[in-house]
Amino acid sequence: MDLALAEARAAAARGEVPVGAVVTDAAGTVLARAGNEVEARRDPSAHAEMLALRAATAARGNKALGDCTLTVTLEPCPMCAQAASFFRIRQVAFGAYDPKGGGVEHGARVYAAPSCHHVPEVVGGVRESDCAALLRAFFAARR
Amino acid sequence: MDLALAEARAAAARGEVPVGAVVTDAAGTVLARAGNEVEARRDPSAHAEMLALRAATAARGNKALGDCTLTVTLEPCPMCAQAASFFRIRQVAFGAYDPKGGGVEHGARVYAAPSCHHVPEVVGGVRESDCAALLRAFFAARR
Repeated sequence: MDLALAEARAAAARGEVPVGAVVTDAAGTVLARAGNEVEARRDPSAHAEMLALRAATAARGNKALGDCTLTVTLEPCPMCAQAASFFRIRQVAFGAYDPKGGGVEHGARVYAAPSCHHVPEVVGGVRESDCAALLRAFFAARR
Repeated sequence: MDLALAEARAAAARGEVPVGAVVTDAAGTVLARAGNEVEARRDPSAHAEMLALRAATAARGNKALGDCTLTVTLEPCPMCAQAASFFRIRQVAFGAYDPKGGGVEHGARVYAAPSCHHVPEVVGGVRESDCAALLRAFFAARR
């Protein structure tokens, strides 16, 4: 989560909503890391998780990330939660909970749908206060 | 839907699950069209809708597609349904219903979550039999 937080801080410095994500393999080796790039790419789908997942498979030359963990500073939205399932991520570990936009513990609760073919193990609230503080500070400064 | 079907057929010819998507503006002008490229890109998130949405904003140089329709041959999955919301798509028109993987009328039902900030108008079953026949033929040939 240290690396994901560093990516989130770097995103904030670029004027992006501070969310960072890291994909690690079973040995803990970092396959990919990314921060939110919605503004830079002018792409509303360029969430940190999507970028990290794609970069991880590209780095590995393999679509499947079945032994991997996706660590992200904020509860994934439904788009990213479903993407993690498609990439067959073993575990999703996230920091802050997101009642407004999350799709794992809130909202569409993507993994709770019986039709979700691959359900990652979910660990929420990892360094929750650090992750949430970063988001709060970013939005407070914008107001 | 003719163009989306053409993209789906082209995808099938490349060995991809035959799904095609088109983004059109309020005047009906095609901003982007794409077929499924999951295999070609080795990217499980390279669904036709994601590619068409990103290409449409790139073509326009603008993140917002608030006047646009996303036409797709298959009911979008939760990832693509949420992406269409983020891109502020006005209308999602789809062909075949997808009880196993869909996220609009089935499964996570992304737009039914109260936390979904932007809910596109949804029209399902557009040329349903043509769209479904293409998928059936593809999977029958693979068995």
